Amino acid sequence: MSSSSNGLVCFTNCLLPQEDGSLVEKDLWIDERRGVILDAQKTFFLQRERPDKIVDLGGNILSPGYIDIQINGGFGFDFSVYEGDDQAYRDGLKLVAERITETGVTALVPTVITQEKSLYPKLLHHLRPWSPPAAAHLLGWHAEGPFLQLAKRGAHAPPLIASAPDGFNSFESTYGWESLVDAEDWLMASGIDQDTVGVRIITGAPEVEGVMDAISKASKRGICFNIGHSICSTDMATAAVRNGARCITHLFNAMPQLHHRDPSIIGLLGASPYTSSGPASDFAPLPISPSKSGSSSGTGQKTPYASEAFDEIQTPPGTPVKRHVRQQPSTLGQTLFERPFYELIVDGIHIHPNSVRLAYSAHPDGCILITDAMRILDPRLKDGIHEWRDGRRLLKEGDKLYLEGTTTLAGSVVTLDKCVRNFIQFTGCSLGEAIKCATLNPARCLGIENRKGSLRAGADADLVVLDRRGKVLSTWVKGKKVWGKN
Amino acid sequence: MSSSSNGLVCFTNCLLPQEDGSLVEKDLWIDERRGVILDAQKTFFLQRERPDKIVDLGGNILSPGYIDIQINGGFGFDFSVYEGDDQAYRDGLKLVAERITETGVTALVPTVITQEKSLYPKLLHHLRPWSPPAAAHLLGWHAEGPFLQLAKRGAHAPPLIASAPDGFNSFESTYGWESLVDAEDWLMASGIDQDTVGVRIITGAPEVEGVMDAISKASKRGICFNIGHSICSTDMATAAVRNGARCITHLFNAMPQLHHRDPSIIGLLGASPYTSSGPASDFAPLPISPSKSGSSSGTGQKTPYASEAFDEIQTPPGTPVKRHVRQQPSTLGQTLFERPFYELIVDGIHIHPNSVRLAYSAHPDGCILITDAMRILDPRLKDGIHEWRDGRRLLKEGDKLYLEGTTTLAGSVVTLDKCVRNFIQFTGCSLGEAIKCATLNPARCLGIENRKGSLRAGADADLVVLDRRGKVLSTWVKGKKVWGKN
Repeated sequence: MSSSSNGLVCFTNCLLPQEDGSLVEKDLWIDERRGVILDAQKTFFLQRERPDKIVDLGGNILSPGYIDIQINGGFGFDFSVYEGDDQAYRDGLKLVAERITETGVTALVPTVITQEKSLYPKLLHHLRPWSPPAAAHLLGWHAEGPFLQLAKRGAHAPPLIASAPDGFNSFESTYGWESLVDAEDWLMASGIDQDTVGVRIITGAPEVEGVMDAISKASKRGICFNIGHSICSTDMATAAVRNGARCITHLFNAMPQLHHRDPSIIGLLGASPYTSSGPASDFAPLPISPSKSGSSSGTGQKTPYASEAFDEIQTPPGTPVKRHVRQQPSTLGQTLFERPFYELIVDGIHIHPNSVRLAYSAHPDGCILITDAMRILDPRLKDGIHEWRDGRRLLKEGDKLYLEGTTTLAGSVVTLDKCVRNFIQFTGCSLGEAIKCATLNPARCLGIENRKGSLRAGADADLVVLDRRGKVLSTWVKGKKVWGKN
Repeated sequence: MSSSSNGLVCFTNCLLPQEDGSLVEKDLWIDERRGVILDAQKTFFLQRERPDKIVDLGGNILSPGYIDIQINGGFGFDFSVYEGDDQAYRDGLKLVAERITETGVTALVPTVITQEKSLYPKLLHHLRPWSPPAAAHLLGWHAEGPFLQLAKRGAHAPPLIASAPDGFNSFESTYGWESLVDAEDWLMASGIDQDTVGVRIITGAPEVEGVMDAISKASKRGICFNIGHSICSTDMATAAVRNGARCITHLFNAMPQLHHRDPSIIGLLGASPYTSSGPASDFAPLPISPSKSGSSSGTGQKTPYASEAFDEIQTPPGTPVKRHVRQQPSTLGQTLFERPFYELIVDGIHIHPNSVRLAYSAHPDGCILITDAMRILDPRLKDGIHEWRDGRRLLKEGDKLYLEGTTTLAGSVVTLDKCVRNFIQFTGCSLGEAIKCATLNPARCLGIENRKGSLRAGADADLVVLDRRGKVLSTWVKGKKVWGKN
């Protein structure tokens, strides 16, 4: 270590997850002061820099930190409960952001379930992007409701479920106009700023009055619209995706079963790439070669959701980056249909392992692991009855969590690192492939993969060190170790 | 052409489907006299033989002939209707075998639906393997019933549905002992012989009394046991596959919808390769590299159903070949679970296109296209009411076929070549990948891929020439052209 410290850290003796799902033995260089990942080739070979610090990882895996895009709370705090005490709410957020790092999570999208309308603006104000010190990043909010299907409300309170008679205007008047402003994306701008937009994700049911109209407007503003708590038909689900819906909320849960003749939301994972879905007639000449991916699974097509890769150096700081702008590639004169991302709760309870593998193998690039965890999430918590909200209580039995006295599952208590391990066992995929579903895929869904969820040069140095069984050994945020097993 | 004819034919200027789903520009050599495909390298380069005949295919596709493993009849003849006139029944079989070649089919497994018990032995006697001249091969019978679930009987007559209180003995007493004898497989023996075994496939419901026991016994005799017309649970479906069930009859139809917490038969397509399906605990070290196929879909595993490839020259003629003997590969001390094949009716009616793609992308190597066609199958037949059986009638509307006066679908009237074209449009796969689902996959299911459904050296020269849209131009059986478009 030289006295003229350059802030360079080199992680060595480790396996790095690649974006194709493989793990490769390779060093990773970061700039500890800026908290970003460096281009090792440029740094070392061209500039002949030497690191201040070398971290030997003993052959373990150095992954991008996990991203949880659907989480209701944890460690005793519920993102959906605001009791008027601003400081208490901020403290709760901070507590979750700190403690969640133990599970490998370095960024999360706090989820707010259906609320009293008057509460939204207050809540959402606190849920703008925030990075408490030595904690995971809070990426903005995920509003699950109120524009949901009453018949698939799950644990949402029936009187609060609403329609949107004025389309997107109803969304604005519910969440607050300033919450949905078409602002610059802080992640792509120079830093975290309390004046940037807070919304990341809205979950709604396309069949509810006014929602379909709002999908296209929300999407154009860079909001990730999720289909969920819905009974919509195949045609309506397809239209929602064409209008810009990017993701499916907790796939399989709070939606119709797959009916083979009206496969509805779940069937989107098998949506044909071609516009016309009727039987073959005189259509254009058929492709005669296998898909470019070389896979015969028919799932190898490139999703247009991914932002075009750009070289950070060529992008002037502060340049507005449009998230979620849909490309509409066409081939042979046909408009291609691109399948949405989908969230899976892989606790072994919300979805049978066979269903997990069926979904994943149908559309691997769309798979996003989430916890959907509740306030009682805490790896150390005991089984039994726990207070929830509105005087209701939850029964925890292992990883099972019910509304007391019912068989209704109410979110989960599983940690994201355990979901990754379960996923490997259920699907037979590799650790590298499972990691992708908790890092790159959620980042791509949000359009932030140049800053989060990847090891690209210029990305934030949010990292998690895993052993070869997927157990978390240490967690790093912006280049600093924030949690370690010892 | 020399005067000392050697019977060699060389197809040139064509694309050959490869077993990985690609199409490759390559010549194919056959021995017209023996009716088999030759190893071009050995024949031409080593022995310096010159062909008697060169067939220029004008850049079209030369595929193995299609194999239909579930077809109820066609061209006015119903495999399930035996009226005591042996000659009439044989004539009917021959008619179908001749005319079906127009649809690219060169081998079929005639399907017999649930019958009066007394009829089985008579019917099945006629359905032993048979190759009428200039016609498709009849590969033996597929008994769909009577051991089915009454609640999922479809068009099967309720009073004839049965249980199997004596297990496999009930099967023997129903179909006739001699129909299920553990005989040598004619396809692997020296030639077609009326004394060889006729059974190819039995469809039954694992939850029906005695059926589970019969599955393992039937499988050990080389019978392909299909799960179908069933409401069995996930656990029972899994047990049936472990007992030897190899295939699922017309997937999605006559079975429960996919329920995400008890995904039943459909869920088998997503069955985890690992024995334990509970949440992860302290299991063996996880695989850290992607599956060997390089695909991230998790579907690349090798199925053990395929017979070990063998060199026909090294196998003495008459050597009994065990079909369907399950290998049980184990890795890391765990027993691997191999997913079954599954049949799809891709007429655009029995299954929504999205469901087709969902199934195919989940498990591409297991996909088998079938017609499930009825006696009224005839590319030239008009819409309207048609006589069926037992005084019941069918309503044909395009590719739709109903029991008159109901909305119950009763098989289909689609041709297999059209299924291949539909399949491409629904899934976005290539023509080569779709061909595989009508050739190699059904052959592998039956364990006959060294003789049928492939272009391997030594295989029968059963071929179909297709244009690049998948339309049939000509059909060849045992090296002879049996149908041509002009």
